[in-house]
Amino acid sequence: MSLPEEIATIAKDARIASRVMANLSAPAKNGLLLSMASALEADTTSLMTENAKDIAAGRERGLSAAMLDRLLLDEKRISAMADGLREVAELPDPVGEISDMRRRPSGIQVGRMRIPLGVIGIIYESRPNVTADAAGLCLKSGNAVILRGGSEAIHSNRAIGAILSRTLQVAGLPSAALQVLTTTDREAVLELLKREEEIDLIIPRGGESLIRFVAEHSRIPVIKHYKGVCHTFIDANADLDMAEQICINAKVQRPGVCNAMETLLVHSDCAATFIPRITATLRNLGVELRGCPISRELVPDMALATEEDWQAEYLDLILAVRVVADIDAAIAHINTYGSLHTEVIITRDYAHSQRFVREVNSSVVMVNASSRFSDGNQFGLGAEIGISTTKLHSFGPMGLEDLTTRKFVVLGNGEVRA
Amino acid sequence: MSLPEEIATIAKDARIASRVMANLSAPAKNGLLLSMASALEADTTSLMTENAKDIAAGRERGLSAAMLDRLLLDEKRISAMADGLREVAELPDPVGEISDMRRRPSGIQVGRMRIPLGVIGIIYESRPNVTADAAGLCLKSGNAVILRGGSEAIHSNRAIGAILSRTLQVAGLPSAALQVLTTTDREAVLELLKREEEIDLIIPRGGESLIRFVAEHSRIPVIKHYKGVCHTFIDANADLDMAEQICINAKVQRPGVCNAMETLLVHSDCAATFIPRITATLRNLGVELRGCPISRELVPDMALATEEDWQAEYLDLILAVRVVADIDAAIAHINTYGSLHTEVIITRDYAHSQRFVREVNSSVVMVNASSRFSDGNQFGLGAEIGISTTKLHSFGPMGLEDLTTRKFVVLGNGEVRA
Repeated sequence: MSLPEEIATIAKDARIASRVMANLSAPAKNGLLLSMASALEADTTSLMTENAKDIAAGRERGLSAAMLDRLLLDEKRISAMADGLREVAELPDPVGEISDMRRRPSGIQVGRMRIPLGVIGIIYESRPNVTADAAGLCLKSGNAVILRGGSEAIHSNRAIGAILSRTLQVAGLPSAALQVLTTTDREAVLELLKREEEIDLIIPRGGESLIRFVAEHSRIPVIKHYKGVCHTFIDANADLDMAEQICINAKVQRPGVCNAMETLLVHSDCAATFIPRITATLRNLGVELRGCPISRELVPDMALATEEDWQAEYLDLILAVRVVADIDAAIAHINTYGSLHTEVIITRDYAHSQRFVREVNSSVVMVNASSRFSDGNQFGLGAEIGISTTKLHSFGPMGLEDLTTRKFVVLGNGEVRA
Repeated sequence: MSLPEEIATIAKDARIASRVMANLSAPAKNGLLLSMASALEADTTSLMTENAKDIAAGRERGLSAAMLDRLLLDEKRISAMADGLREVAELPDPVGEISDMRRRPSGIQVGRMRIPLGVIGIIYESRPNVTADAAGLCLKSGNAVILRGGSEAIHSNRAIGAILSRTLQVAGLPSAALQVLTTTDREAVLELLKREEEIDLIIPRGGESLIRFVAEHSRIPVIKHYKGVCHTFIDANADLDMAEQICINAKVQRPGVCNAMETLLVHSDCAATFIPRITATLRNLGVELRGCPISRELVPDMALATEEDWQAEYLDLILAVRVVADIDAAIAHINTYGSLHTEVIITRDYAHSQRFVREVNSSVVMVNASSRFSDGNQFGLGAEIGISTTKLHSFGPMGLEDLTTRKFVVLGNGEVRA
């Protein structure tokens, strides 16, 4: 079978399996996820053996220690992966909910029923736990899923996929509801992205270049976020103790993630007080600072921020600092340089809080809280399948419900249209 | 300026204008639409003069009488176009609604605010009233809009666009919030479909070939429906009087639209009673019938339906008829040949009604009502911008709300993440 034929078969099988998954009851889906969790734990030894092959290959290819750590599966991580599936089993099933049922003047009742999307393709890199996490969310929401991980984790992903597929079969369900692409050929991704007849949604998870590659080549809708350039704006009359605590949390608690603060904007009225204070605090915590000319008048030994700094997602202990004349300038800066991820205002001013919430374009806007909260779990969505910074279908952190859509249900008694 | 530069400027101007439109109050938007309605009526004479140029050109190109009729603008139609804008002004403004605001264990409050999508591109054919209808819906939902009608209506569309743009200017609003592409060059569409940085959504309205062209070339998300192959399934124990009335309405009332019935499926238990009766009735109303072999045993002078008939959107007084063994066969037929538009079951059986609603994949599923109800207005969405038969973002008839999305709003009191 040629590669295009092989991918076509995978996609068609997934489509057929998706019809079965769409009609499963919540208890059946939850039971399946719990069995998958147990099966992963029961196969810990073989999973670790397969993972060791990826680690050895990674060492040979000279992957960094950090990369190797992301690849690693040990007992604790396999257990965490299983617990992730158990947590998804606990979440309410979004499928089948009928809402907004209303009687129309014609007599018909019209409402909307939540249904699975159908077949979801996940294209990801590095961490093998994504295989189980994404599979859990897609199956719980009644979808079939095709998973394509990175070549660096191919042995681990295949092994996880085989265990999960086997659990589907044991449960009398179509194993094609969950398929892991076993080829690492990039052509396979390109073929997958052409199967618009069978696949309803593609979610790429990984670095910006992977996401751009997928978005450019896909004929299937893609939900994506390229990067998180999150801003915190300290308003003129902000509580500066609160501002300091939030800045520390947003920058230092976990700098390598997309909801960490990358740019600090400070109102000129409080700049002389706040900038020397926050820069000293952050420097003590190991943060490197890059400031605009005005902020460098206050803290002269800061490096000068360039145009690139305003666009940078450092994912590191680095922070760009800019003094702005007022809230308009802050909003304009964010709407120019932001990535539509998460933006924060620290303020005591009611009208400013309202304006910031309304006028900032991003998918998450916050008042007086750390950008680090921008996360499906923290928002009460349960586990998170990704964060969308594009506006169609989903905008912001995505949970189970974002893997579904709604159809119209019409209940009549013989009505005809006049 | 080259064509790509020209389109880039249009798209960038629209993006800038969209920020202004996003923050307009409902009264401001409603006032704008009412002024536009008055302006269209005040300019009836000049609109008819411009329209006459399209009609003359159409005659020269040998357009059919039906096509020429669709192009025509007379006083009554201009008035109807203005009334359409007035009706949209009456609809509730979806923008700014905050819903699902809940306190999380961390202390933060998380909710979702409805916001405009940004810039919407509408690519359409033939009827010039789409220019005003689509503009009204896009502006009311706080978006900027770029309109690209067909070359056959170019004079009419330009004239309508000029009137609406002028009204924006008079109201002190950016005229770039509504732009009509004045070139009929197909390259212009291709350039527009590349402006993913500025345009958030493309909605093609027209024939299947236009929609396929747009979907294939767009790097911007497209909401589309190719065709409506709507089914009505008469269950074994259906009320046959009701079934007959609904079939007449669904097939004959307005056969040229996408929610008309194209295929009738009849349970074998009632086929011998119902098929002779309904075929006689429909023939009397001028409907041509094409039947499966079993139905032709009952009505031998029906033409034999071929595989193409099961896939056909006739948009005409033609109906395909098939006898099916049971509800499973009916659902299987629909899920194989359907277009995800609208499907109907006529039944007295509660369990069957539930199964049909749950298991049929289409965007609208109905029990005991005519498929002709499948329409945004009938469903209570107000005016309709289109019907989506793809599942992402919107599925089924689309109203104002489908031109918006939701962002997360987080209200805190200094919370940081643990």
